[in-house]
Amino acid sequence: MTDPESTVVLKLGGSVITEKDQPETLDEAALGRAVDALATDRPERLVLVHGGGSFGHHHASEHGVSTTVGTTDAAAVTAIHDAMTRLNRAVVERLQAAEIPAVPIRPLSVATRGADGTLTFPPEPIQQLLAEGFVPVVHGDVVVHADMGATILSGDTIAARLGAQLDTDRIGICSSVPGVLDDTGAVIDRITTLETVADVLGASDTTDVSGGMAGKVDTLLAAKVTASIFGLDTLAAFLAGERPGTTVRPLPLEGS
Amino acid sequence: MTDPESTVVLKLGGSVITEKDQPETLDEAALGRAVDALATDRPERLVLVHGGGSFGHHHASEHGVSTTVGTTDAAAVTAIHDAMTRLNRAVVERLQAAEIPAVPIRPLSVATRGADGTLTFPPEPIQQLLAEGFVPVVHGDVVVHADMGATILSGDTIAARLGAQLDTDRIGICSSVPGVLDDTGAVIDRITTLETVADVLGASDTTDVSGGMAGKVDTLLAAKVTASIFGLDTLAAFLAGERPGTTVRPLPLEGS
Repeated sequence: MTDPESTVVLKLGGSVITEKDQPETLDEAALGRAVDALATDRPERLVLVHGGGSFGHHHASEHGVSTTVGTTDAAAVTAIHDAMTRLNRAVVERLQAAEIPAVPIRPLSVATRGADGTLTFPPEPIQQLLAEGFVPVVHGDVVVHADMGATILSGDTIAARLGAQLDTDRIGICSSVPGVLDDTGAVIDRITTLETVADVLGASDTTDVSGGMAGKVDTLLAAKVTASIFGLDTLAAFLAGERPGTTVRPLPLEGS
Repeated sequence: MTDPESTVVLKLGGSVITEKDQPETLDEAALGRAVDALATDRPERLVLVHGGGSFGHHHASEHGVSTTVGTTDAAAVTAIHDAMTRLNRAVVERLQAAEIPAVPIRPLSVATRGADGTLTFPPEPIQQLLAEGFVPVVHGDVVVHADMGATILSGDTIAARLGAQLDTDRIGICSSVPGVLDDTGAVIDRITTLETVADVLGASDTTDVSGGMAGKVDTLLAAKVTASIFGLDTLAAFLAGERPGTTVRPLPLEGS
């Protein structure tokens, strides 16, 4: 089903792996389930991305920094970045404990945004880490942004960008819900344009500087990336090659 | 004397800012002196690089990793990297406390080595951070190395590479000695080839996976970078535009 040569990009939502309402608190049970699923059925070439959850978002909100509002305050930059370093370190530790050769990649060190917001994220370090058998673990972060100091780069945007840049047809967005839900609470099977689902997509319940479900869908569509949005219950199915939850496809694809 | 538009690259030796014989111990007094000098006379565009000292080197030795011997053990990679993250965080904190807008750059996230050891270190994030008024603080690290897993990238090599890539004529290597010493203990004023000083350059006294003084000189000469190697006592003089200690110049330059 899955080409073993291709790279799988999997984003673990910050709201999945942290207790989003409690500052800097892991959801150990959920993170453990994700790690177990990966340890059981790990793609040969895997890039993990995780969001900020209660580590990054609170600091970003406190300092008034978002994906479009920057800061030139170095202390604000490091407050957000260090919180994400703590979360990333915990994720990497849990993965290594399960024999997954995880190593961290910090966007602040490698990614840049131009004055118009255009993102540059050189994929070479990740590609070379994959070639050496490592599992790069990237996180939502604060990155330099021309004329604005530094802004937030969300895990969703990273997953979409890396999915587009690396040779992959398997992008998974593991979320705190089983997919994109319609107004009856049912999972929408497929989304090809934001307009068709705009009515049912609200903002997320808690502090999320990176836009909630509408933002996820918009980011994936804008990056012209096909992805599955699903919940933790179906992570194993995704890793086994299925397309659980909602498939976001920006264009009609052959064979679909 | 100094072009205010040019970038100054300053490397603070690991043996300067840490107690090199005591694992993961800062030399607070020395780091404080360096920070004071920078706070007093900070170049407008400044890139700081620091070595590993007792944070990075012990972990590298323990895991048998050097600039030429790699590891594919993810736990070894993160043991070295995390130690350097702790040192880097301490340095960034001290700088920020002195109103210097320091932000971290981690080589593992951005730099790569080819199978022949050729280093690629994209300077764009650093250039853009400089343009936004930040002071990037880079550290010696472990980086991915084709066909070898990951190897050590020394602070000296980083300083030489960034010095060559950024628009700068001021590269300082602040060391634990006042310069390169001849066999009478006097500071050698100028070095243009490694051969002329090979006899007097030994290895450093304590564990240094990145080659000691001979390695510093060789790295600077090989990168075709002109630099000053000096001690902490003359850091203020260097920042004021002087050329204290030993000037390493790979080729005869005009006006020299």
